[in-house]
Amino acid sequence: MKFYILTLFPEMMENVLNTSILGRAKEGGYISFEAVNIRDYTKDKHKKVDDYPYGGGAGMVMQAQPIYDAYMHVCQLAGHKVKCLYLTPQGKLFDQPAAKSLALEEDLCLLCGHYEGVDERVLEEIVDGYYSIGDYVLTGGELPALVMIDAISRMVPGVLTNSQSGSDESLEGNLLEYPQYSRPETWNDRTVPAILLSGDHARVDKWRFDQRVERTKAFRPDLYEKYLSQSQNNG
Amino acid sequence: MKFYILTLFPEMMENVLNTSILGRAKEGGYISFEAVNIRDYTKDKHKKVDDYPYGGGAGMVMQAQPIYDAYMHVCQLAGHKVKCLYLTPQGKLFDQPAAKSLALEEDLCLLCGHYEGVDERVLEEIVDGYYSIGDYVLTGGELPALVMIDAISRMVPGVLTNSQSGSDESLEGNLLEYPQYSRPETWNDRTVPAILLSGDHARVDKWRFDQRVERTKAFRPDLYEKYLSQSQNNG
Repeated sequence: MKFYILTLFPEMMENVLNTSILGRAKEGGYISFEAVNIRDYTKDKHKKVDDYPYGGGAGMVMQAQPIYDAYMHVCQLAGHKVKCLYLTPQGKLFDQPAAKSLALEEDLCLLCGHYEGVDERVLEEIVDGYYSIGDYVLTGGELPALVMIDAISRMVPGVLTNSQSGSDESLEGNLLEYPQYSRPETWNDRTVPAILLSGDHARVDKWRFDQRVERTKAFRPDLYEKYLSQSQNNG
Repeated sequence: MKFYILTLFPEMMENVLNTSILGRAKEGGYISFEAVNIRDYTKDKHKKVDDYPYGGGAGMVMQAQPIYDAYMHVCQLAGHKVKCLYLTPQGKLFDQPAAKSLALEEDLCLLCGHYEGVDERVLEEIVDGYYSIGDYVLTGGELPALVMIDAISRMVPGVLTNSQSGSDESLEGNLLEYPQYSRPETWNDRTVPAILLSGDHARVDKWRFDQRVERTKAFRPDLYEKYLSQSQNNG
Protein backbone atom coordinates (compact mmCIF):
# COMPACT_ATOMS: atom_id res chain seq x y z
CA MET A 1 0.00 0.00 0.00
CA LYS A 2 1.25 3.46 -0.86
CA PHE A 3 0.69 6.63 1.19
CA TYR A 4 1.03 10.10 -0.33
CA ILE A 5 1.19 12.95 2.15
CA LEU A 6 0.50 16.53 1.06
CA THR A 7 2.25 18.72 3.60
CA LEU A 8 4.18 21.95 4.18
CA PHE A 9 6.55 20.04 6.52
CA PRO A 10 7.77 16.89 4.75
CA GLU A 11 10.84 16.73 7.02
CA MET A 12 8.55 16.07 10.02
CA MET A 13 7.51 12.80 8.45
CA GLU A 14 10.71 11.03 7.64
CA ASN A 15 12.12 9.87 10.99
CA VAL A 16 8.75 8.64 12.11
CA LEU A 17 8.07 6.70 8.93
CA ASN A 18 11.48 5.06 8.95
CA THR A 19 11.41 3.86 12.58
CA SER A 20 10.41 0.57 14.16
CA ILE A 21 7.57 -1.43 12.63
CA LEU A 22 6.80 1.10 9.89
CA GLY A 23 10.45 1.25 8.88
CA ARG A 24 10.63 -2.53 8.63
CA ALA A 25 7.34 -2.71 6.72
CA LYS A 26 8.75 -0.24 4.23
CA GLU A 27 11.97 -2.22 3.84
CA GLY A 28 9.89 -5.36 3.36
CA GLY A 29 7.99 -3.66 0.54
CA TYR A 30 4.59 -3.90 2.22
CA ILE A 31 4.06 -0.16 2.43
CA SER A 32 5.65 2.95 0.95
CA PHE A 33 5.41 6.67 1.57
CA GLU A 34 5.81 9.80 -0.46
CA ALA A 35 5.70 13.16 1.27
CA VAL A 36 4.86 15.85 -1.29
CA ASN A 37 5.79 19.42 -0.36
CA ILE A 38 2.82 21.64 -1.20
CA ARG A 39 5.13 24.66 -1.37
CA ASP A 40 6.86 23.15 -4.43
CA TYR A 41 3.62 23.64 -6.39
CA THR A 42 2.79 27.28 -5.72
CA LYS A 43 2.69 29.56 -8.75
CA ASP A 44 3.34 32.57 -6.50
CA LYS A 45 6.73 34.07 -7.26
CA HIS A 46 7.52 34.45 -3.55
CA LYS A 47 6.63 30.76 -2.94
CA LYS A 48 3.70 31.89 -0.79
CA VAL A 49 1.06 29.23 -0.06
CA ASP A 50 -1.29 31.17 2.22
CA ASP A 51 -3.18 34.45 2.37
CA TYR A 52 -5.66 36.35 4.55
CA PRO A 53 -9.16 34.93 4.99
CA TYR A 54 -12.04 36.62 3.16
CA GLY A 55 -14.42 38.13 5.69
CA GLY A 56 -11.63 38.89 8.15
CA GLY A 57 -10.43 37.07 11.23
CA ALA A 58 -7.13 35.99 12.73
CA GLY A 59 -4.51 33.95 10.95
CA MET A 60 -3.85 32.80 7.42
CA VAL A 61 -5.61 30.33 5.14
CA MET A 62 -3.87 27.85 2.85
CA GLN A 63 -4.72 28.71 -0.74
CA ALA A 64 -6.38 26.38 -3.22
CA GLN A 65 -3.95 26.41 -6.15
CA PRO A 66 -0.78 24.88 -4.63
CA ILE A 67 -2.75 22.10 -2.92
CA TYR A 68 -4.71 21.32 -6.06
CA ASP A 69 -1.61 21.13 -8.22
CA ALA A 70 0.25 19.00 -5.65
CA TYR A 71 -2.68 16.60 -5.59
CA MET A 72 -2.83 16.47 -9.41
CA HIS A 73 0.85 15.52 -9.34
CA VAL A 74 0.07 12.67 -6.93
CA CYS A 75 -2.67 11.35 -9.24
CA GLN A 76 -0.28 11.57 -12.17
CA LEU A 77 2.37 9.58 -10.24
CA ALA A 78 -0.22 6.95 -9.29
CA GLY A 79 -1.78 6.81 -12.75
CA HIS A 80 -5.30 7.17 -11.32
CA LYS A 81 -7.41 9.33 -9.00
CA VAL A 82 -6.06 8.62 -5.52
CA LYS A 83 -8.54 8.69 -2.63
CA CYS A 84 -7.83 11.91 -0.71
CA LEU A 85 -8.52 12.32 3.01
CA TYR A 86 -8.37 15.64 4.84
CA LEU A 87 -7.31 15.60 8.50
CA THR A 88 -9.44 18.05 10.47
CA PRO A 89 -11.23 18.31 13.84
CA GLN A 90 -14.37 18.55 11.68
CA GLY A 91 -13.96 15.03 10.36
CA LYS A 92 -15.48 11.73 11.34
CA LEU A 93 -13.66 10.28 14.37
CA PHE A 94 -11.02 7.84 13.12
CA ASP A 95 -11.29 4.42 14.80
CA GLN A 96 -10.09 0.83 14.43
CA PRO A 97 -12.84 -0.25 11.97
CA ALA A 98 -11.85 2.73 9.76
CA ALA A 99 -8.19 1.65 9.98
CA LYS A 100 -9.09 -1.88 8.87
CA SER A 101 -11.24 -0.68 6.02
CA LEU A 102 -8.74 1.91 4.72
CA ALA A 103 -6.02 -0.78 4.77
CA LEU A 104 -7.82 -2.37 1.81
CA GLU A 105 -7.00 0.61 -0.44
CA GLU A 106 -4.19 0.37 -2.96
CA ASP A 107 -3.10 3.90 -2.10
CA LEU A 108 -4.24 6.89 -0.09
CA CYS A 109 -3.47 10.60 -0.15
CA LEU A 110 -3.54 12.46 3.17
CA LEU A 111 -3.86 16.25 3.09
CA CYS A 112 -2.37 18.04 6.11
CA GLY A 113 -3.80 21.46 6.85
CA HIS A 114 -2.04 24.22 8.76
CA TYR A 115 -2.70 27.75 10.00
CA GLU A 116 -6.40 28.64 10.16
CA GLY A 117 -7.32 25.99 7.63
CA VAL A 118 -7.59 25.40 3.91
CA ASP A 119 -9.61 27.24 1.26
CA GLU A 120 -12.93 25.39 1.23
CA ARG A 121 -13.07 25.25 -2.56
CA VAL A 122 -10.08 22.96 -2.99
CA LEU A 123 -11.50 20.66 -0.31
CA GLU A 124 -14.76 20.45 -2.27
CA GLU A 125 -12.75 19.74 -5.40
CA ILE A 126 -10.39 16.96 -4.27
CA VAL A 127 -11.33 15.54 -0.86
CA ASP A 128 -13.14 12.18 -0.59
CA GLY A 129 -13.32 11.97 3.20
CA TYR A 130 -12.76 14.00 6.37
CA TYR A 131 -11.19 12.41 9.45
CA SER A 132 -10.38 13.58 12.96
CA ILE A 133 -8.14 11.53 15.25
CA GLY A 134 -9.76 12.99 18.39
CA ASP A 135 -11.44 15.97 20.01
CA TYR A 136 -8.39 18.15 20.57
CA VAL A 137 -6.77 20.92 18.55
CA LEU A 138 -3.31 20.42 17.01
CA THR A 139 -0.94 22.80 15.25
CA GLY A 140 -1.38 20.97 11.94
CA GLY A 141 -2.47 17.84 10.13
CA GLU A 142 0.95 16.14 10.08
CA LEU A 143 0.65 14.23 13.38
CA PRO A 144 -2.90 13.05 12.56
CA ALA A 145 -1.60 11.83 9.17
CA LEU A 146 1.20 9.90 10.90
CA VAL A 147 -1.23 8.42 13.42
CA MET A 148 -3.56 7.26 10.65
CA ILE A 149 -0.68 5.84 8.59
CA ASP A 150 0.54 3.91 11.64
CA ALA A 151 -2.88 2.47 12.49
CA ILE A 152 -3.73 1.63 8.87
CA SER A 153 -0.31 0.13 8.09
CA ARG A 154 -0.60 -2.32 11.00
CA MET A 155 -3.67 -3.72 9.24
CA VAL A 156 -1.94 -4.24 5.86
CA PRO A 157 -1.21 -7.97 5.44
CA GLY A 158 2.47 -8.77 6.08
CA VAL A 159 3.27 -5.69 8.16
CA LEU A 160 2.85 -7.36 11.55
CA THR A 161 4.71 -10.59 12.17
CA ASN A 162 2.87 -13.36 14.01
CA SER A 163 4.52 -12.41 17.26
CA GLN A 164 3.19 -8.87 16.98
CA SER A 165 -0.30 -9.59 15.77
CA GLY A 166 -1.55 -10.22 19.29
CA SER A 167 -1.69 -6.45 19.60
CA ASP A 168 -4.95 -6.65 17.71
CA GLU A 169 -6.48 -7.76 20.96
CA SER A 170 -6.46 -4.19 22.21
CA LEU A 171 -10.00 -2.93 21.70
CA GLU A 172 -11.04 -6.20 20.01
CA GLY A 173 -14.63 -6.90 20.98
CA ASN A 174 -14.72 -3.50 22.73
CA LEU A 175 -12.61 -4.79 25.64
CA LEU A 176 -9.32 -3.35 26.85
CA GLU A 177 -6.16 -5.45 27.23
CA TYR A 178 -5.37 -7.55 30.29
CA PRO A 179 -2.33 -6.57 32.43
CA GLN A 180 1.05 -7.95 31.34
CA TYR A 181 3.96 -9.16 33.47
CA SER A 182 7.48 -10.20 32.53
CA ARG A 183 10.64 -11.24 34.35
CA PRO A 184 11.64 -11.13 37.14
CA GLU A 185 8.94 -12.82 39.23
CA THR A 186 9.51 -10.36 42.04
CA TRP A 187 10.39 -6.75 41.31
CA ASN A 188 10.43 -3.95 43.90
CA ASP A 189 8.61 -6.27 46.34
CA ARG A 190 5.84 -6.76 43.80
CA THR A 191 5.16 -10.31 42.63
CA VAL A 192 3.57 -11.60 39.45
CA PRO A 193 0.00 -12.90 40.06
CA ALA A 194 0.40 -16.57 40.98
CA ILE A 195 -2.08 -17.79 38.40
CA LEU A 196 0.21 -16.66 35.57
CA LEU A 197 2.88 -19.04 36.88
CA SER A 198 0.45 -21.96 37.25
CA GLY A 199 0.85 -23.35 33.73
CA ASP A 200 -2.92 -23.91 33.65
CA HIS A 201 -3.75 -22.30 30.32
CA ALA A 202 -7.52 -22.49 30.71
CA ARG A 203 -7.40 -20.71 34.08
CA VAL A 204 -4.92 -18.13 32.73
CA ASP A 205 -7.27 -17.41 29.82
CA LYS A 206 -10.25 -17.09 32.16
CA TRP A 207 -8.31 -14.75 34.48
CA ARG A 208 -7.17 -12.59 31.58
CA PHE A 209 -10.65 -12.35 30.15
CA ASP A 210 -12.07 -11.36 33.56
CA GLN A 211 -9.34 -8.71 33.86
CA ARG A 212 -10.30 -7.29 30.45
CA VAL A 213 -13.94 -7.01 31.49
CA GLU A 214 -13.11 -5.47 34.87
CA ARG A 215 -10.71 -2.93 33.43
CA THR A 216 -13.07 -1.90 30.68
CA LYS A 217 -15.86 -1.46 33.23
CA ALA A 218 -13.58 0.61 35.47
CA PHE A 219 -11.70 2.74 32.91
CA ARG A 220 -13.98 2.97 29.88
CA PRO A 221 -17.63 2.57 30.85
CA ASP A 222 -18.60 3.74 27.34
CA LEU A 223 -16.76 0.79 25.73
CA TYR A 224 -18.17 -1.55 28.37
CA GLU A 225 -21.71 -0.58 27.33
CA LYS A 226 -20.82 -1.42 23.72
CA TYR A 227 -19.37 -4.75 24.84
CA LEU A 228 -22.51 -5.59 26.80
CA SER A 229 -24.92 -4.79 23.99
CA GLN A 230 -22.72 -6.75 21.56
CA SER A 231 -22.69 -9.79 23.90
CA GLN A 232 -26.45 -9.65 24.24
CA ASN A 233 -26.88 -9.58 20.48
CA ASN A 234 -24.60 -12.58 20.11
CA GLY A 235 -26.02 -14.47 23.09
CA MET B 1 6.90 23.90 30.48
CA LYS B 2 9.18 20.90 30.16
CA PHE B 3 8.28 17.56 28.60
CA TYR B 4 10.24 14.39 29.35
CA ILE B 5 9.58 11.46 27.04
CA LEU B 6 10.51 7.92 28.05
CA THR B 7 10.89 6.00 24.80
CA LEU B 8 12.80 3.28 22.97
CA PHE B 9 12.83 5.49 19.84
CA PRO B 10 14.08 8.97 20.79
CA GLU B 11 15.10 9.65 17.18
CA MET B 12 11.42 9.53 16.15
CA MET B 13 10.75 12.58 18.27
CA GLU B 14 13.30 15.10 17.20
CA ASN B 15 12.20 16.29 13.77
CA VAL B 16 8.63 16.63 14.92
CA LEU B 17 9.49 18.59 18.04
CA ASN B 18 11.75 20.97 16.14
CA THR B 19 9.31 21.84 13.35
CA SER B 20 6.83 24.68 12.90
CA ILE B 21 5.05 26.07 15.94
CA LEU B 22 6.63 23.66 18.44
CA GLY B 23 10.11 24.41 17.12
CA ARG B 24 9.51 28.15 17.47
CA ALA B 25 8.03 27.72 20.96
CA LYS B 26 11.16 25.84 21.95
CA GLU B 27 13.42 28.54 20.52
CA GLY B 28 11.36 31.14 22.37
CA GLY B 29 11.93 29.27 25.63
CA TYR B 30 8.23 28.58 26.28
CA ILE B 31 8.58 24.81 26.16
CA SER B 32 11.41 22.30 26.18
CA PHE B 33 11.72 18.58 25.52
CA GLU B 34 13.96 15.80 26.67
CA ALA B 35 13.63 12.37 25.08
CA VAL B 36 15.12 9.77 27.45
CA ASN B 37 16.11 6.45 25.87
CA ILE B 38 14.81 3.67 28.13
CA ARG B 39 17.42 1.31 26.70
CA ASP B 40 20.20 3.40 28.27
CA TYR B 41 18.94 2.33 31.71
CA THR B 42 18.76 -1.44 31.38
CA LYS B 43 20.99 -3.44 33.70
CA ASP B 44 20.88 -6.39 31.26
CA LYS B 45 24.30 -7.00 29.79
CA HIS B 46 22.83 -7.48 26.29
CA LYS B 47 20.93 -4.19 26.60
CA LYS B 48 17.65 -6.10 26.51
CA VAL B 49 14.56 -4.18 27.66
CA ASP B 50 11.84 -6.78 27.06
CA ASP B 51 11.05 -10.41 27.79
CA TYR B 52 8.28 -12.99 27.32
CA PRO B 53 4.98 -12.45 29.13
CA TYR B 54 4.22 -14.61 32.17
CA GLY B 55 1.23 -16.81 31.42
CA GLY B 56 2.16 -17.10 27.74
CA GLY B 57 0.84 -15.29 24.68
CA ALA B 58 2.29 -13.63 21.60
CA GLY B 59 4.89 -10.90 21.69
CA MET B 60 7.19 -9.37 24.23
CA VAL B 61 6.58 -7.19 27.29
CA MET B 62 8.70 -4.20 28.30
CA GLN B 63 10.33 -4.96 31.65
CA ALA B 64 9.96 -2.89 34.80
CA GLN B 65 13.57 -2.14 35.73
CA PRO B 66 14.79 -0.04 32.77
CA ILE B 67 11.60 2.06 32.75
CA TYR B 68 11.74 2.62 36.50
CA ASP B 69 15.36 3.69 36.44
CA ALA B 70 14.81 5.98 33.43
CA TYR B 71 11.93 7.63 35.27
CA MET B 72 14.00 8.01 38.45
CA HIS B 73 16.61 9.77 36.33
CA VAL B 74 13.93 12.17 35.06
CA CYS B 75 12.84 13.00 38.62
CA GLN B 76 16.46 13.56 39.57
CA LEU B 77 16.93 15.95 36.62
CA ALA B 78 13.76 17.83 37.56
CA GLY B 79 14.53 17.86 41.29
CA HIS B 80 11.04 16.59 42.15
CA LYS B 81 8.55 13.84 41.36
CA VAL B 82 7.41 14.57 37.80
CA LYS B 83 3.81 13.71 36.91
CA CYS B 84 4.00 10.60 34.70
CA LEU B 85 1.39 9.77 32.06
CA TYR B 86 1.20 6.43 30.26
CA LEU B 87 -0.13 6.42 26.68
CA THR B 88 -2.36 3.40 26.15
CA PRO B 89 -5.66 2.48 24.48
CA GLN B 90 -6.76 1.69 28.04
CA GLY B 91 -6.51 5.30 29.13
CA LYS B 92 -9.05 8.04 29.47
CA LEU B 93 -9.73 9.66 26.09
CA PHE B 94 -7.53 12.72 25.73
CA ASP B 95 -9.50 15.85 24.79
CA GLN B 96 -9.21 19.64 24.67
CA PRO B 97 -10.15 20.23 28.34
CA ALA B 98 -7.40 17.75 29.31
CA ALA B 99 -4.94 19.62 27.07
CA LYS B 100 -5.81 22.92 28.78
CA SER B 101 -5.54 21.48 32.25
CA LEU B 102 -2.23 19.64 31.63
CA ALA B 103 -0.77 22.89 30.19
CA LEU B 104 -0.81 24.24 33.76
CA GLU B 105 1.84 21.72 34.88
CA GLU B 106 5.44 22.80 35.28
CA ASP B 107 6.62 19.57 33.68
CA LEU B 108 5.25 16.24 32.47
CA CYS B 109 6.76 12.83 31.81
CA LEU B 110 5.19 10.76 29.01
CA LEU B 111 5.88 7.03 28.99
CA CYS B 112 5.68 5.40 25.54
CA GLY B 113 4.91 1.68 25.50
CA HIS B 114 5.83 -0.73 22.73
CA TYR B 115 5.41 -4.40 21.84
CA GLU B 116 2.64 -6.12 23.82
CA GLY B 117 2.80 -3.58 26.60
CA VAL B 118 4.61 -2.78 29.81
CA ASP B 119 5.02 -4.81 33.00
CA GLU B 120 2.03 -3.80 35.11
CA ARG B 121 4.12 -3.40 38.27
CA VAL B 122 6.14 -0.45 37.02
CA LEU B 123 2.94 1.24 35.87
CA GLU B 124 1.51 0.84 39.38
CA GLU B 125 4.73 2.24 40.79
CA ILE B 126 5.26 5.38 38.70
CA VAL B 127 2.19 6.29 36.61
CA ASP B 128 -0.15 9.10 37.70
CA GLY B 129 -2.55 8.96 34.76
CA TYR B 130 -3.49 6.87 31.72
CA TYR B 131 -4.44 8.55 28.45
CA SER B 132 -5.58 7.31 25.05
CA ILE B 133 -5.66 9.66 22.05
CA GLY B 134 -8.42 7.62 20.35
CA ASP B 135 -9.98 4.20 19.80
CA TYR B 136 -7.42 2.77 17.39
CA VAL B 137 -4.33 0.61 17.86
CA LEU B 138 -0.87 2.02 17.11
CA THR B 139 2.56 0.41 16.95
CA GLY B 140 3.73 2.33 20.04
CA GLY B 141 3.20 5.26 22.35
CA GLU B 142 5.49 7.70 20.53
CA LEU B 143 2.89 9.22 18.20
CA PRO B 144 0.33 9.62 21.02
CA ALA B 145 3.03 11.35 23.09
CA LEU B 146 3.75 13.74 20.21
CA VAL B 147 0.05 14.42 19.71
CA MET B 148 -0.42 15.22 23.40
CA ILE B 149 2.69 17.42 23.49
CA ASP B 150 1.41 19.33 20.46
CA ALA B 151 -2.09 19.88 21.89
CA ILE B 152 -0.82 20.76 25.38
CA SER B 153 1.94 23.08 24.11
CA ARG B 154 -0.55 25.16 22.12
CA MET B 155 -2.24 25.95 25.44
CA VAL B 156 0.96 27.10 27.18
CA PRO B 157 0.91 30.94 27.39
CA GLY B 158 3.21 32.52 24.80
CA VAL B 159 3.32 29.55 22.41
CA LEU B 160 0.63 30.79 20.04
CA THR B 161 0.97 34.30 18.68
CA ASN B 162 -2.16 36.42 18.47
CA SER B 163 -2.57 35.62 14.82
CA GLN B 164 -2.61 31.92 15.57
CA SER B 165 -4.78 31.91 18.63
CA GLY B 166 -7.95 31.99 16.57
CA SER B 167 -7.39 28.27 16.10
CA ASP B 168 -8.86 27.83 19.54
CA GLU B 169 -12.20 28.32 17.91
CA SER B 170 -12.08 24.75 16.64
CA LEU B 171 -14.22 22.75 19.03
CA GLU B 172 -14.79 25.79 21.26
CA GLY B 173 -18.30 25.57 22.64
CA ASN B 174 -18.64 22.14 21.00
CA LEU B 175 -19.00 23.66 17.54
CA LEU B 176 -16.83 22.93 14.51
CA GLU B 177 -15.07 25.67 12.51
CA TYR B 178 -16.74 27.67 9.74
CA PRO B 179 -15.41 27.27 6.16
CA GLN B 180 -12.47 29.47 5.18
CA TYR B 181 -11.71 31.17 1.86
CA SER B 182 -8.69 33.05 0.62
CA ARG B 183 -7.53 34.66 -2.62
CA PRO B 184 -8.35 34.57 -5.46
CA GLU B 185 -12.07 35.43 -5.46
CA THR B 186 -12.69 32.96 -8.25
CA TRP B 187 -10.75 29.72 -8.44
CA ASN B 188 -11.56 26.83 -10.76
CA ASP B 189 -14.96 28.44 -11.48
CA ARG B 190 -15.75 28.48 -7.78
CA THR B 191 -16.42 31.84 -6.17
CA VAL B 192 -16.10 32.99 -2.56
CA PRO B 193 -19.53 33.38 -0.86
CA ALA B 194 -20.63 36.98 -1.59
CA ILE B 195 -21.31 37.77 2.06
CA LEU B 196 -17.62 37.42 2.92
CA LEU B 197 -16.87 40.25 0.46
CA SER B 198 -19.64 42.50 1.81
CA GLY B 199 -17.58 44.20 4.52
CA ASP B 200 -20.59 43.87 6.85
CA HIS B 201 -18.92 42.34 9.90
CA ALA B 202 -22.12 41.62 11.79
CA ARG B 203 -23.58 39.68 8.87
CA VAL B 204 -20.27 37.86 8.31
CA ASP B 205 -20.23 36.81 11.98
CA LYS B 206 -23.83 35.65 11.81
CA TRP B 207 -23.14 33.65 8.63
CA ARG B 208 -20.06 32.04 10.14
CA PHE B 209 -21.88 31.11 13.31
CA ASP B 210 -24.73 29.56 11.33
CA GLN B 211 -22.17 27.60 9.29
CA ARG B 212 -20.61 26.25 12.47
CA VAL B 213 -23.96 25.08 13.76
CA GLU B 214 -24.94 23.53 10.41
CA ARG B 215 -21.64 21.71 9.97
CA THR B 216 -21.63 20.36 13.51
CA LYS B 217 -25.19 19.11 13.05
CA ALA B 218 -24.26 17.44 9.76
CA PHE B 219 -20.80 16.01 10.55
CA ARG B 220 -20.73 15.48 14.32
CA PRO B 221 -24.25 14.96 15.70
CA ASP B 222 -22.67 13.85 19.01
CA LEU B 223 -21.00 17.26 19.47
CA TYR B 224 -24.17 19.02 18.33
CA GLU B 225 -26.09 17.33 21.17
CA LYS B 226 -23.48 18.63 23.64
CA TYR B 227 -23.77 22.12 22.13
CA LEU B 228 -27.57 22.05 22.45
CA SER B 229 -27.60 20.94 26.08
CA GLN B 230 -24.93 23.55 26.89
CA SER B 231 -26.98 26.33 25.21
CA GLN B 232 -30.06 25.30 27.15
CA ASN B 233 -28.16 25.43 30.43
CA ASN B 234 -26.86 28.89 29.62
CA GLY B 235 -30.17 30.19 28.23
